[in-house]
Amino acid sequence: MTVRVACQQLAPQIGDLAGNRARALAAIDAAAAAGARVVVLPELAASGYVFADAAEAHALAEPADGPTVTGWAERAAVHGLVVAGGFAEEGGDGRLYNSAALVDASGVRAVYRKAHLWDREPLVFTPGDEPPPVRDTPHGRIGLMVCYDLEFPEWVRAAALERAELLCVPTNWPREPRPAGERPMEVQRAMVSASTNRMAIAVCDRSGTERGTDWTAGTAIAGPDGWLVAGPPADAPALVIADVDLAAARDKAVGPRNDALADRRPELYGIAIRT
Amino acid sequence: MTVRVACQQLAPQIGDLAGNRARALAAIDAAAAAGARVVVLPELAASGYVFADAAEAHALAEPADGPTVTGWAERAAVHGLVVAGGFAEEGGDGRLYNSAALVDASGVRAVYRKAHLWDREPLVFTPGDEPPPVRDTPHGRIGLMVCYDLEFPEWVRAAALERAELLCVPTNWPREPRPAGERPMEVQRAMVSASTNRMAIAVCDRSGTERGTDWTAGTAIAGPDGWLVAGPPADAPALVIADVDLAAARDKAVGPRNDALADRRPELYGIAIRT
Repeated sequence: MTVRVACQQLAPQIGDLAGNRARALAAIDAAAAAGARVVVLPELAASGYVFADAAEAHALAEPADGPTVTGWAERAAVHGLVVAGGFAEEGGDGRLYNSAALVDASGVRAVYRKAHLWDREPLVFTPGDEPPPVRDTPHGRIGLMVCYDLEFPEWVRAAALERAELLCVPTNWPREPRPAGERPMEVQRAMVSASTNRMAIAVCDRSGTERGTDWTAGTAIAGPDGWLVAGPPADAPALVIADVDLAAARDKAVGPRNDALADRRPELYGIAIRT
Repeated sequence: MTVRVACQQLAPQIGDLAGNRARALAAIDAAAAAGARVVVLPELAASGYVFADAAEAHALAEPADGPTVTGWAERAAVHGLVVAGGFAEEGGDGRLYNSAALVDASGVRAVYRKAHLWDREPLVFTPGDEPPPVRDTPHGRIGLMVCYDLEFPEWVRAAALERAELLCVPTNWPREPRPAGERPMEVQRAMVSASTNRMAIAVCDRSGTERGTDWTAGTAIAGPDGWLVAGPPADAPALVIADVDLAAARDKAVGPRNDALADRRPELYGIAIRT
């Protein structure tokens, strides 16, 4: 099964909820017009990322049934596609979560709360305690995590063991120095994570600068063999789109006699890794 | 602490034990002359890899105190350096193992038996059941695994959790097709594994062709930030050598407030990953 997957690399404006929401909906429409069946948006796509303080984050947060995710679900129903994107979640318990939603034409399929928080995020957000969700959708079996989560191969493996065919990763990657001519390490990590798990990975980053933070613009789509099928684009809003062979992600064969998952030796990892 | 690390990409001739041993010792001498303090050799450096059958493998195997590893230990003592390399181990129990040894001037520090076997190897070798060894040496805290082991991030993590500063990986990587202009995925995996764990990784591959199998010649050294400091070279025997900052591998900080190991959430991985 080949599925056209789009990542909409946006440039949200911190605090401009209405404008960011409208830009995200327009981006979903544009991706649908280009034939996309799965659309990935960045982390914290409606609020922006660099909050001045917790009070500002609270003011920009909303519940999972708030206007941002509801808007995505409406567009998913209109176009018959899947949307994965990040938003600042008001948890109903007085806590905020750096969350992502997976929606399809039937509504909200999963809300995931980022489990590995980056930098100043713990000053604002509470980490989630649930594994990355994996859901059967009309356009493939899709997993979801957020940004820094991807740096933990245990977490990526968890999604692969649940047989995700495509892992969607809304991100806001602050730009790091890198040697000339090299792709961002984050993009290479997406490639290698895909290859290691024989699972497609779509990472949707953002572009531009926000309150002094430059973003990587590292949006990319890796196929189940790890090689990029799209991205990364220039440092500007961009539609990164490709046809991805999700059927290949169901086959974990590596060479004639090996299997990326069956060759694991979890009885040994239990001893070695849980220190 | 900066340590000069060398990988000697060799081209063993299948079955030529004496010649392969002599070439490996010459390679250790050459690396020492270039100032190396750690020398990595390929997988199955003395025997070759593509055995016709189990009988041939038995004939080319030797115990861990046999001439191959003893020869490396003698050279390690002469030069005051560390050698990590692969050999076909006669286990003393009638079984063969695809093993690697870590030796320094004091003798054999560890013998590791490859736990994840590739392709036809199970027809010849028994998989090991022990985690990758990590040893303090005069030239850094060094871990050891073999080739396909590196495709299991759980295994790499095990070495990192034991605080390896440098992971040595003797390999024989059969060449796979790749897009033009791309490094081998195996080399990217070494880079990303290094970055993910803030641990240097030295992979020593081989060159040429053996009984119809082309090798990747993917020898490379990644620093603890993941970027390559040496390799990969051309498809020919090559000395791949660089000064590696092993002190940086002791510092797991990622950005101002994060830590590649402390940010793990093993209480969640236990649930999510052990399926």
